[in-house]
Amino acid sequence: DTIRHLFKQIFQASLGLQEEEKKSLLISRKNKSQDTVVQVGPLAVGGGTPIIISGPCSVETEAQMEAVASHLQGEGIALLRGGAYKPRTSPYDFQGLGKEGLRILSETAKRHQMVCVSEIVTPEDVEMACEYLDVIQIGARNMQNFELLKAAGSVRKPILLKRGLAATIEELLYAAEYIASRGNDQIILCERGIRTYEKATRNTLDISAVPILKQESHLPVVVDISHSTGRKDIMFPIAKAALAVGADGLIIETHNEPAVALSDAKQQLDLDQFSTLLNQLRQSGFLPTTVQA
Amino acid sequence: DTIRHLFKQIFQASLGLQEEEKKSLLISRKNKSQDTVVQVGPLAVGGGTPIIISGPCSVETEAQMEAVASHLQGEGIALLRGGAYKPRTSPYDFQGLGKEGLRILSETAKRHQMVCVSEIVTPEDVEMACEYLDVIQIGARNMQNFELLKAAGSVRKPILLKRGLAATIEELLYAAEYIASRGNDQIILCERGIRTYEKATRNTLDISAVPILKQESHLPVVVDISHSTGRKDIMFPIAKAALAVGADGLIIETHNEPAVALSDAKQQLDLDQFSTLLNQLRQSGFLPTTVQA
Amino acid sequence: DTIRHLFKQIFQASLGLQEEEKKSLLISRKNKSQDTVVQVGPLAVGGGTPIIISGPCSVETEAQMEAVASHLQGEGIALLRGGAYKPRTSPYDFQGLGKEGLRILSETAKRHQMVCVSEIVTPEDVEMACEYLDVIQIGARNMQNFELLKAAGSVRKPILLKRGLAATIEELLYAAEYIASRGNDQIILCERGIRTYEKATRNTLDISAVPILKQESHLPVVVDISHSTGRKDIMFPIAKAALAVGADGLIIETHNEPAVALSDAKQQLDLDQFSTLLNQLRQSGFLPTTVQA
Amino acid sequence: DTIRHLFKQIFQASLGLQEEEKKSLLISRKNKSQDTVVQVGPLAVGGGTPIIISGPCSVETEAQMEAVASHLQGEGIALLRGGAYKPRTSPYDFQGLGKEGLRILSETAKRHQMVCVSEIVTPEDVEMACEYLDVIQIGARNMQNFELLKAAGSVRKPILLKRGLAATIEELLYAAEYIASRGNDQIILCERGIRTYEKATRNTLDISAVPILKQESHLPVVVDISHSTGRKDIMFPIAKAALAVGADGLIIETHNEPAVALSDAKQQLDLDQFSTLLNQLRQSGFLPTTVQA
Repeated sequence: DTIRHLFKQIFQASLGLQEEEKKSLLISRKNKSQDTVVQVGPLAVGGGTPIIISGPCSVETEAQMEAVASHLQGEGIALLRGGAYKPRTSPYDFQGLGKEGLRILSETAKRHQMVCVSEIVTPEDVEMACEYLDVIQIGARNMQNFELLKAAGSVRKPILLKRGLAATIEELLYAAEYIASRGNDQIILCERGIRTYEKATRNTLDISAVPILKQESHLPVVVDISHSTGRKDIMFPIAKAALAVGADGLIIETHNEPAVALSDAKQQLDLDQFSTLLNQLRQSGFLPTTVQA
Repeated sequence: DTIRHLFKQIFQASLGLQEEEKKSLLISRKNKSQDTVVQVGPLAVGGGTPIIISGPCSVETEAQMEAVASHLQGEGIALLRGGAYKPRTSPYDFQGLGKEGLRILSETAKRHQMVCVSEIVTPEDVEMACEYLDVIQIGARNMQNFELLKAAGSVRKPILLKRGLAATIEELLYAAEYIASRGNDQIILCERGIRTYEKATRNTLDISAVPILKQESHLPVVVDISHSTGRKDIMFPIAKAALAVGADGLIIETHNEPAVALSDAKQQLDLDQFSTLLNQLRQSGFLPTTVQA
Repeated sequence: DTIRHLFKQIFQASLGLQEEEKKSLLISRKNKSQDTVVQVGPLAVGGGTPIIISGPCSVETEAQMEAVASHLQGEGIALLRGGAYKPRTSPYDFQGLGKEGLRILSETAKRHQMVCVSEIVTPEDVEMACEYLDVIQIGARNMQNFELLKAAGSVRKPILLKRGLAATIEELLYAAEYIASRGNDQIILCERGIRTYEKATRNTLDISAVPILKQESHLPVVVDISHSTGRKDIMFPIAKAALAVGADGLIIETHNEPAVALSDAKQQLDLDQFSTLLNQLRQSGFLPTTVQA
Repeated sequence: DTIRHLFKQIFQASLGLQEEEKKSLLISRKNKSQDTVVQVGPLAVGGGTPIIISGPCSVETEAQMEAVASHLQGEGIALLRGGAYKPRTSPYDFQGLGKEGLRILSETAKRHQMVCVSEIVTPEDVEMACEYLDVIQIGARNMQNFELLKAAGSVRKPILLKRGLAATIEELLYAAEYIASRGNDQIILCERGIRTYEKATRNTLDISAVPILKQESHLPVVVDISHSTGRKDIMFPIAKAALAVGADGLIIETHNEPAVALSDAKQQLDLDQFSTLLNQLRQSGFLPTTVQA
């Protein structure tokens, strides 16, 4: 029994040693106690004021982006999103406008004094994308596309790294470390829901991941409330939960005409719904009432 | 193509018919638009002010319960919990004090002008338990113990019904309907985390379940932040998230000496930690500052 | 580095100590190296020859059971199943015929020189059920209904214990230990699929569980190929896989008129399909060609 | 009620229409009823005789590969595997030898009259890899790396496509369609276990996926029994199950010195264990006794 007790202590010590190893990760809170603040144009992601990233799932046309961006600008939103390279389950689904989509996104954002983010899906496009984008997104399906992570680590652009559909919190941290280990420490982590048996939501938002990520790492963490739920009807409570739990920002998909969107039609808010949501969040004190989100 | 369009409309109509069936559930929001408020002694669960349920995982001794209850009373907590019948994975683990545990819990609560809740695990104990308890809990492992649900539906006591480890939101609602269909509509639903591949938390708190349950049903919903996370270090953010998302209350396990607790030693807060958490929630506006939680 | 190496060895030793504890489980292979053979009438479950358990999901009428049993007897099947107490998601679904169902099942089996198995869902019915049944089934939703397990441990009837929808292999073994610890070691374990994100099958058959259970425990293990897949169209390959992996038997749901069955209509084989499957298994050498399965 | 009945029929018809769409997939069985046989050197994958793919997790040295290959050749194995580009959770783990690894693998295979397969992780390496490899593997983490899939579709090499850790069967089929839609129909699907809550195995082998994939598609399907289980001690029963369920082949990791392997040390068989397994499979009739696996 004393032996058992002794062994338990030694067991704990062994775990401690393993912790030691993790401490040395560049992205670890143990390695740097202060929060990393990722500056994106006028926005300080992780700087204490939550940010809002919004825009359509896919960039479809100039007119669509103009409609969305002008509305978002009017609401004080500074960070415009829009997919140009779309990872789609079927090869016969709309695949995005590619480079042309990046151009539309970028020009629209500039016209409205906004900054922009879009997903890049292959290493060779990373450098090109830097010309158009203020933040490069690595999507859920590519969280362990390590060559893409390395490419993202080699440029000097902020990276928005989404958690994989079935990735553990630890794997997400190691994915971020791939980027950091190449010299780019401007990383924003994103919880976007994980795959479980529950079908009432598109994915299961793992809200606990947010404080754990912020505890384990010094990187900012945002929550994609559109993909994690896949439902418009619970956006307000989920947005509040995400902000209350400590998220540094939200991703909210918006579209000028969701019903005819070329992807994710069901989960994108229309522009009025977005304004309503924003007002609710501001009036209930979950978002500051001043300009930029 | 017109045929396809037509069929899509008919398909939607078919889904509508299936919805029709659900509308008739007693616990459905469609059947009763107003929130059900479950009155437990002085507490109105679901009445707009979030409640706190607290106490140890297991009732162990009179002294332990006295220590916990007097502290909780001092903090303005009105609803005391403590397990007497413990569903444990191994038959060789502590199984709870049984009826003696209910007696200790009940007398301790009365001594402190509190009300109490405890889990009952078999139909034949339900009636007996009514003498001791103000709320009868049906635990996660018994969410589809339908005989127990029926027995709980036959008494006139509030029931705290926890979601099963791998139960869908829909299955939880139907489990509640088992109780309601027997005549007992005093039901409090509880989200307590679901089983997923993620191991950083004991379970994955499905925060989206709260607004969905409240939308689908008129019953109050509480969140067990101890079992869903299994970690003390994220209690404050998770409590905030649960309240922000619209939970009608929280379950927080507390123990006067967690280190020597006979079950769930790792996740129970000690009394000081509990007071700190409560203060944080009150100061940040997530809980009212007046007495009873 | 030597310290790290040393610690790793001590770590291993610690794990060894924990193994020590498991060794003492009554159902552990370490405690009894020889296979337990559960004798059910003429059948030796775990005795080397795989057995077949068949019959409808629910006992509905005398005529239905007669039709099924006479067909099964003609095929040399000795163990008849049929649900009398049905754990159903909705209280408004068919709940089974109860005791009357047990009577019909029992008399039908006797008339055909068969033995029978049915699920019991509450402790107080266990003793009564012993009069009717040759094997008492504890279903997936009740795998951690510990009072039911204890009641099953107190009688002298073989128990068919199904794995819970989200139970680990370890939890299934501990559930069996609940029964064994009360003095009943006539336990047959059943793998019946676990709940995952995959929706092509009703559940995900965890085929690896079979050899692991047989390695960890001396108890026989059968596979429910109907519930684990929920599809008729892959019965033959799945039956072969289950037998090849070392299962001591199969559960195959059959119905004389699946299309009008009161439960699980989709997954029950009709009697011709069952005969075809049996022939295929016999001709391919996965089942012996002699009488009884 | 007649309306309800009518609607149910129309509902079925609607589902039929959706099926219609799937029928047009190039990889669909409905589009081509005959099995696709992928010829890899002397091996006809999907031709009726199950094949064995074996070799170490990672190519480490010439000596290691020589030791493994000469042993495998002696056992009649024709298809050598070995990882050169290793997708590893941590950037500080061994990342593989890269192109040098491909060279070693390729030359070793040729020296032993074997063919070889290795994983490529980024589109730009696909063409280069064709010089070294007889089959290009796309790994689980890259199953939805669509640019990689497109690159694989543009060459004329057989592709071994592994199911993602949390990919549905349907998503795997669509991933294969990405390859086929670019003109390469030489695709071998691989079930390698999915991520679930169960921790007794590294992943949960979804055995039902094999017959479903073979039913839905005309492509050959192999099972990776090393990654799906992560345990050496159940290799024989799992190999039998995989072959019994209809797999066209097995992947079995082998290493001359597993204890010092640079990756997956725990799950690789040593050469003697591999020979024993092979003998068991041949003697029990699950593999033909003649040369090539």
